[in-house]
Amino acid sequence: MTSTSLWHPQTAMSTIEESLTVIASGRGASVRTEDGQDLLDLPAGLWHANVGHGRTRIADAVRRQMADLETYHLFQGMANRPAIRLAERLAALSPIPDAKVFLTSGGSDSVDTACKLARRHWQLAGRPGKRVIVSRQHAYHGLHGFGTSITGIQSNRDGYGGDSLIPETARVPWDDLAATEAELLRLGPDNVAAVIAEPVIGTGGVLLPPPGYLTGLAELCRRLDVLLIADEVITGFGRVGQWFACRRFGIEPDLLTMAKGITSGYLPLGGVLVSRRIWEPFFAETPDAPTFRHGLTYSGHAAACVAAEENLSILEEEGLLERVLDLEPVLAQALTPLRDHEAVVDVRAGTGLLAAVQLDPDADARPVLRAAREGGVLTRLLADNSLHVSPPFVITAEEISRAADVLKSALDRARTLESA
Amino acid sequence: MTSTSLWHPQTAMSTIEESLTVIASGRGASVRTEDGQDLLDLPAGLWHANVGHGRTRIADAVRRQMADLETYHLFQGMANRPAIRLAERLAALSPIPDAKVFLTSGGSDSVDTACKLARRHWQLAGRPGKRVIVSRQHAYHGLHGFGTSITGIQSNRDGYGGDSLIPETARVPWDDLAATEAELLRLGPDNVAAVIAEPVIGTGGVLLPPPGYLTGLAELCRRLDVLLIADEVITGFGRVGQWFACRRFGIEPDLLTMAKGITSGYLPLGGVLVSRRIWEPFFAETPDAPTFRHGLTYSGHAAACVAAEENLSILEEEGLLERVLDLEPVLAQALTPLRDHEAVVDVRAGTGLLAAVQLDPDADARPVLRAAREGGVLTRLLADNSLHVSPPFVITAEEISRAADVLKSALDRARTLESA
Ligand SMILES: Cc1ncc(COP(=O)(O)O)c(C=O)c1O
Ligand SMILES: Cc1ncc(COP(=O)(O)O)c(C=O)c1O
Repeated sequence: MTSTSLWHPQTAMSTIEESLTVIASGRGASVRTEDGQDLLDLPAGLWHANVGHGRTRIADAVRRQMADLETYHLFQGMANRPAIRLAERLAALSPIPDAKVFLTSGGSDSVDTACKLARRHWQLAGRPGKRVIVSRQHAYHGLHGFGTSITGIQSNRDGYGGDSLIPETARVPWDDLAATEAELLRLGPDNVAAVIAEPVIGTGGVLLPPPGYLTGLAELCRRLDVLLIADEVITGFGRVGQWFACRRFGIEPDLLTMAKGITSGYLPLGGVLVSRRIWEPFFAETPDAPTFRHGLTYSGHAAACVAAEENLSILEEEGLLERVLDLEPVLAQALTPLRDHEAVVDVRAGTGLLAAVQLDPDADARPVLRAAREGGVLTRLLADNSLHVSPPFVITAEEISRAADVLKSALDRARTLESA
Repeated sequence: MTSTSLWHPQTAMSTIEESLTVIASGRGASVRTEDGQDLLDLPAGLWHANVGHGRTRIADAVRRQMADLETYHLFQGMANRPAIRLAERLAALSPIPDAKVFLTSGGSDSVDTACKLARRHWQLAGRPGKRVIVSRQHAYHGLHGFGTSITGIQSNRDGYGGDSLIPETARVPWDDLAATEAELLRLGPDNVAAVIAEPVIGTGGVLLPPPGYLTGLAELCRRLDVLLIADEVITGFGRVGQWFACRRFGIEPDLLTMAKGITSGYLPLGGVLVSRRIWEPFFAETPDAPTFRHGLTYSGHAAACVAAEENLSILEEEGLLERVLDLEPVLAQALTPLRDHEAVVDVRAGTGLLAAVQLDPDADARPVLRAAREGGVLTRLLADNSLHVSPPFVITAEEISRAADVLKSALDRARTLESA
């Protein structure tokens, strides 16, 4: 029986004692294990270390804030200044004009907030039947009550009894607008609150939207009067070379969820950008204006907001979004040749610093991960047996090419072992 | 139209511009507004500032950790040392023997995690019908998908369409074991996964359990083979003079949710303590042991875990749990005389530093809050129109008596105004 007290997320706990890797420190695009091995952090933690590790500037800003005031909550008219400042700054970057900002502590929080707000919107609008949240196969939207109900990754849905914790959900193919329209019509637009979509599906395997898919989805939602929620927990804050993927793909969602890159993971923070159509009744200056009876103790945590502010400043001052665009073809060119490897089913790259090298779905990928690790490259598996590649933006072209070489030899070595 | 970009939680946004109070700094049991007014922080933020504000020791420890490594995630065998250490420490303090620890970023996260785990437990145990989560009237368990479905505060449930986002829920009176047993029998124990209970109901109005209620509830759950989830988000980490209220009240739950006092609010963190009965199959050393397919990017965030460790050390080294027990009668004696005030319906105190002064449910309490503020005392309203009293543990007996005096004159002044 495994003796640790810590229950690791998404982990087969019986394997933990043999497989545990403890990261002790990080600098730029690399981390160091407790055993002293330096590893290129290809997944940037869990897609979050946009500005890279070891930024003392963020640590110092957080220390200053915590020494003055760790936080004060935002309920019922109370506030702290960092939360107010951060909201203004996010609204200015938002692809949604005139957005209001609801702050949370992570991506799952933001998804549950957005889904509640979508359902609340239609209740207020006098269309109480509109309750279904439609999501895409392979989608990952966190794992709270709503997130678990709408994920398109079946193993994350299974095991709680019933099909969906919250029953008013439906799933559509990830890439097929005609099938999505057919499903919306089958459900009846009068019953659908929102469609939620990651502009680039992340955990499901870095699935890039087919050309025209996202604008088509936005048009479909508008035509059928269904809200569109863009889940930009991964794609936000520069990952695809713009502040938000919605800008890159030219869509304007009704709600947009954020986390990860908002602080580059330095502290837990997330948020939802809300369009005027949705926030307007709540902000009306009438005594009977409705209240959104929702919130978290740490909505707008002062120290976390300061970490976000400092992170945004680093992204701006160091021109890291432009850097992502510069490195985009470098990463794609480095990885694409792996497509010819016999162990590889597909390589997906070409949109920002976001890529995946998909192995045979039935192959045991652990030897590949181990061999890459021995070569100084840390990666992990996505839901479809892909190697996860989403490095910190400070990675160099040289490091990218080294990573690709190491992945290639790791694939070779694993293949040799297997046939031996 | 209100011009801020920040959407405040649980707030009538039309009133924000006139009512906004920005807190700039904090020290011990007090906070200072941007206008320079010092206020005794009677609610300790939102019940969380157990060790008080301005602890540079926590700020320094967090800075050191962030400069080395902001965090590394715990998925699939990865880890960071602070998360491992914190889990061991929490397991040692746990009222559940041999507990495993699942880490999160807040109370709502912990509740959704515990509810998922309760349902998962019964699916694995071959009793798939056991899905209903039973909660108490006035209960508050956060506001994610599960939390919104199980709260006993009606206004937090309303407005999303349907009775309960997750339908398999039921509510029982907060203080009535016979009615609870009847409801469990009506639902059928074969359909009930768990009962969830705050040992002392917090947001619902600081409702102390009737004598014998909690042991009776634990006994009832055992007898009917229903899991018991103790929601100790407020009551944990010294608030009632012990590490957990379950110890004070002599019960051993199957799952226990934590947040708030775990870091005293310095950083967002929460967790769930899990009993052997529930974790055992997941930790079995067999290849087909089940995996709990759940987790948050920031489960075990390294900097947040360091804040928790430092906070626990402060609680221990300064003997703050004993201090709470010493101050418990002081607070009760200071507030009890308010019971005679004509504006007051009830005063509830006597269990740790946790109290409420309940006003007439229909009275406009805002003048009382304003008058208290002018007297240097910050409080807020709970769901039942009670004044919220749960000060930092470093509050002095003198400050408690001053707070009671200020509340009394505030009640007097508001009453005079009203009758004028
Ligand atoms: C697209 C997307 N949404 C939501 C989430 C959930 O975020 P968190 O783990 O911070 O709750 C994730 C996390 O990976 C994500 O990738
Ligand atoms: C008993 C209880 N459970 C859960 C929560 C939710 O915690 P959070 O706001 O950190 O999500 C709270 C918050 O007040 C609480 O009091």
